[in-house]
Amino acid sequence: MASFVPVPAGSDFPIQNLPYGVFSTKDNERRRVCVAIGEHVLDLSAVADFYPESVRESLQSTSLNLLMGLGHESWAVVRKITTELLLKGSKLEQNSPLASKALIPQSTVEMHLPAQIGDYTDFYSSIHHATNVGIMFRGKDNALMPNWKYLPVGYHGRASSVVVSGTPINRPYGQTLPVDGQPPVFGPCRLLDFELEMAFFIGGPENKLGERINVDDAWKNVFGFTVMNDWSARDIQKWEYVPLGPFTAKNLGTTISPWVVPVAALEPFLVDNFPQDPSPFPYLKHQQKFNFDIKLEVSIKPENKSEKVICKSNYKNLYWTVLQQIAHHTVTGCNVRPGDLMASGTISGETEDSFGSMLELSWKGTREVDLGNGEVRKFIKDGDEVIIRGYCENNGLRIGFGECAGKVLPAIAFS
Amino acid sequence: MASFVPVPAGSDFPIQNLPYGVFSTKDNERRRVCVAIGEHVLDLSAVADFYPESVRESLQSTSLNLLMGLGHESWAVVRKITTELLLKGSKLEQNSPLASKALIPQSTVEMHLPAQIGDYTDFYSSIHHATNVGIMFRGKDNALMPNWKYLPVGYHGRASSVVVSGTPINRPYGQTLPVDGQPPVFGPCRLLDFELEMAFFIGGPENKLGERINVDDAWKNVFGFTVMNDWSARDIQKWEYVPLGPFTAKNLGTTISPWVVPVAALEPFLVDNFPQDPSPFPYLKHQQKFNFDIKLEVSIKPENKSEKVICKSNYKNLYWTVLQQIAHHTVTGCNVRPGDLMASGTISGETEDSFGSMLELSWKGTREVDLGNGEVRKFIKDGDEVIIRGYCENNGLRIGFGECAGKVLPAIAFS
Repeated sequence: MASFVPVPAGSDFPIQNLPYGVFSTKDNERRRVCVAIGEHVLDLSAVADFYPESVRESLQSTSLNLLMGLGHESWAVVRKITTELLLKGSKLEQNSPLASKALIPQSTVEMHLPAQIGDYTDFYSSIHHATNVGIMFRGKDNALMPNWKYLPVGYHGRASSVVVSGTPINRPYGQTLPVDGQPPVFGPCRLLDFELEMAFFIGGPENKLGERINVDDAWKNVFGFTVMNDWSARDIQKWEYVPLGPFTAKNLGTTISPWVVPVAALEPFLVDNFPQDPSPFPYLKHQQKFNFDIKLEVSIKPENKSEKVICKSNYKNLYWTVLQQIAHHTVTGCNVRPGDLMASGTISGETEDSFGSMLELSWKGTREVDLGNGEVRKFIKDGDEVIIRGYCENNGLRIGFGECAGKVLPAIAFS
Repeated sequence: MASFVPVPAGSDFPIQNLPYGVFSTKDNERRRVCVAIGEHVLDLSAVADFYPESVRESLQSTSLNLLMGLGHESWAVVRKITTELLLKGSKLEQNSPLASKALIPQSTVEMHLPAQIGDYTDFYSSIHHATNVGIMFRGKDNALMPNWKYLPVGYHGRASSVVVSGTPINRPYGQTLPVDGQPPVFGPCRLLDFELEMAFFIGGPENKLGERINVDDAWKNVFGFTVMNDWSARDIQKWEYVPLGPFTAKNLGTTISPWVVPVAALEPFLVDNFPQDPSPFPYLKHQQKFNFDIKLEVSIKPENKSEKVICKSNYKNLYWTVLQQIAHHTVTGCNVRPGDLMASGTISGETEDSFGSMLELSWKGTREVDLGNGEVRKFIKDGDEVIIRGYCENNGLRIGFGECAGKVLPAIAFS
């Protein structure tokens, strides 16, 4: 299967991918829905006439929320027609005025958040990450909390501070407790960190408050996946988080890649779910495979220096599936809505080079991470850009997620 | 100051109040912005021509978000003109066709959520509540966590599950740990509770991500107050909440009253801020009085029985002001948006009859709360309606918040 749009070798965006995004251009600031193909975007609003009327409005919208809300049957229709439009010999290729209008080089567009995020939830579903953090703060014998293997631990995050890749992040001010038993101090965060995560957007019909989503139906609510950096102020978090969880240590910003890869594009990369022991409660039990072999990498690029990969992890390290996350999220009757974002929590693998945060890579600041060029890090410095990438690859097929990047700017002093 | 619209003695809604809401009627399902006056609503969309063009669109909107976003100068303009329209001898009284169109009996309207809530944050700002809960779970010597008096502890809640007064709440299913050290069990919540809270809506200009809101400017971001019941599944919460905070134990539903009382209406009831020791960090310090004498009551109405007041508390019990809450919420650069909802946390007073939850009133289920008619409660039973009311009163002036009511329905069995 080949597109008439050139797709360079190693591109994240072959015709088998077609991730969704929202873009604007300098000469047209209206936000429009698109897919990525090679080094172009296909403006779906410009080709909306090729699609059935039932989906057309969603393709002419300024965000993906409408399309997300239409449900999996409509997603399949849109994906099929988009694929046909991009194949060699398609009606679009034959209509070159339209093709040149609808296909726009990615280098000339501005990408935006793909959806209006109603609510953002962050889970804590990597067993290696939870174990690492547990060992650091509670010792080896109590590393995993007693609830961890019974339910996908998660918490409500801040939706307003989710931003698209490329948005700079200011080092925050906050309260910290440098010395136990002494009073806290106030100043710029000293232990700024990234968290390597993936997230998915909720789609499909909304459930009403009080209605649960059955784990076997939950796949209908998974629109697609993105790559995320859940920036974390470790020193602020440690002081503030008891007893109600992380708050200002996390709402300083959460970066996502602009591309939402549909589940259909990930199907060739399905792998067995993570083995679970003890067996989960029936409301969390499903047979369906819903785990993916997605390679994940984190690079740090110090100011004016070249980037260095410091972590290689994989999505398949997650203990809980997104179907279990949805079933648990709604078990008490919580309603979810198209555009809601649910994240995995930091995805660490078993080995030291696969840990998904500086907290783990530097083991709480006890060792240095080498960036080459004479640069070492325990946590993130001002001027550092953190770049997270994700991709699936086998048999010559590469499905990528694009970049989730953000540069840390110095703290803004109090005036 | 008297309105031409009748205001019965003891009404929550004299002309000095004019709380905002969003309503619809049977013959016009479009949601419209209104104020309450006596036993009527004034449909502001019907009288929008009396207001300057700069605010008119906000009065013709389907939610209060636009008005919230316009800022305090516009709020003052709208309030002044609305007051003039409702005074005896006003242009509205003289235009009886318009008056009879714009003034609609509250008994015939349906009230909706006043705003689209972007993000919902719940603080934990009552020292008596935090102390009570601390004593129960950690003993008297460690009742308050070390951070509690240094920062307004809070957490991100779930915006989608905030509902307007009158919405029934289903008893949730969930995981609980009845016996420490034994495996958890799954079933309907056994310890369902209310939490007596107040909340305010954010208004004014949005701050950008990375920008803090100065504590001395924070008043500009306070649009108005409402009364809230933060339903809580205590047994589910206890098992799930470590280490990331409450999650499914809270997102089963959060009820607010339909009326948003503007800050201007509360000014006659300003009282001294709660004394704070230790003195807070400079970013949390303000001279401005921003505490209010608001009487709060909780009633339980068992099915087919009369209601009984079981708690009398007061807003002025809060240790942290909303100005401090806003300054802290944004100190790491979190952006807030018009329509965001920020709640106080359970407002308990010092005395046993002023505790704002069944957890405290029954002291963790160790004593019964008498409802009369042979009914006693330790927690909430199916069929119980919980009704929270708030009002300010002095010198014959009563500014009320209306009702925040919700009835608990039995758990929906798993099919």
